[in-house]
Amino acid sequence: MQGDSLEVYFATSNKHKVEEAKKVLGTVGITVKHFPFVHREIRSDSLEEIAREAATAAFKQCRQPVFVEDTGLFIDSLNGFPGTFSAWTLKKIGLEGILKLMQGVNNRSAYFETYIAYKRDTSHISTFSGKCSGQISLEGRGSEGFGYDPLFVPDGHDQTFAESITLKNKLSHRYKSLLEFSKTLTSRR
Amino acid sequence: MQGDSLEVYFATSNKHKVEEAKKVLGTVGITVKHFPFVHREIRSDSLEEIAREAATAAFKQCRQPVFVEDTGLFIDSLNGFPGTFSAWTLKKIGLEGILKLMQGVNNRSAYFETYIAYKRDTSHISTFSGKCSGQISLEGRGSEGFGYDPLFVPDGHDQTFAESITLKNKLSHRYKSLLEFSKTLTSRR
Repeated sequence: MQGDSLEVYFATSNKHKVEEAKKVLGTVGITVKHFPFVHREIRSDSLEEIAREAATAAFKQCRQPVFVEDTGLFIDSLNGFPGTFSAWTLKKIGLEGILKLMQGVNNRSAYFETYIAYKRDTSHISTFSGKCSGQISLEGRGSEGFGYDPLFVPDGHDQTFAESITLKNKLSHRYKSLLEFSKTLTSRR
Repeated sequence: MQGDSLEVYFATSNKHKVEEAKKVLGTVGITVKHFPFVHREIRSDSLEEIAREAATAAFKQCRQPVFVEDTGLFIDSLNGFPGTFSAWTLKKIGLEGILKLMQGVNNRSAYFETYIAYKRDTSHISTFSGKCSGQISLEGRGSEGFGYDPLFVPDGHDQTFAESITLKNKLSHRYKSLLEFSKTLTSRR
């Protein structure tokens, strides 16, 4: 970081996430650079713990201020399934599998949550979270976004995230966590 | 190990597994001792990799010849789900969840697999596997065994593992892996 310009690396293998972070952090003058990072996450039911460990591992490679994020979909009636194993579960059973599990279930409440872990230097690490509550829809709808977006209707709305990317960008767990993160970064200027 | 008597530690938090290992290895004169072990497994789609890492971690604590085992249920039509996350999945969605996922699915083939990893000393590690193929039943049946046993009908039979523990003990993945392990141990006498 030099003078007023802030620069952070985003360690991820997902370019879509980098684009989103560039947009959100760019508006407050923070430059996001992509640090290509493939990492085997630890096995845990805590997004925060997973993100902290990954950020520590990323910093060891990157040696620059770097952040990672971890996101999960937590469905109340399924005891938080698929949770921290959301990406893996989607690969295995797909959206169709989730809809099958929800057949005949009245309580369709769920939330998305993101944890960002930021490793600034060898001695400092901090985390920022964002959450978005909603309902699992009765069927998949929409083609925008990715992952579980076609099944997720945020509270107070009728469309799924995949039906309205504008809605998603304003309300999403990831957006909220990036916002929290940006506030902390800019307060240090 | 002294003379003809072989002694190995089984690192696990599951006492039922210890009893089973004592029976199988006891018949060939191998003494199994329980090493109480709570370990966070690595995140992997490979039982063998998970077992190897866990055995290495167990040996560091135990400092004696020690083995661990890892078991999963792999359902073909679900791309191997729940696989290496079988215990976690059962806790979250239960047998009922698996049955829902299998609704309307014609191909009900599945297999149980166990990997044993044996860490004899600092320089030696070996693995032994056992597999049992079968079908996911249309509903849960029986009350013996544990885990997914009420849903699993081994090939060539009509009863689930939970309906006949005798059947399970003769055919099971875990039994087969223990048998392979015992052969190697006794061949070294």
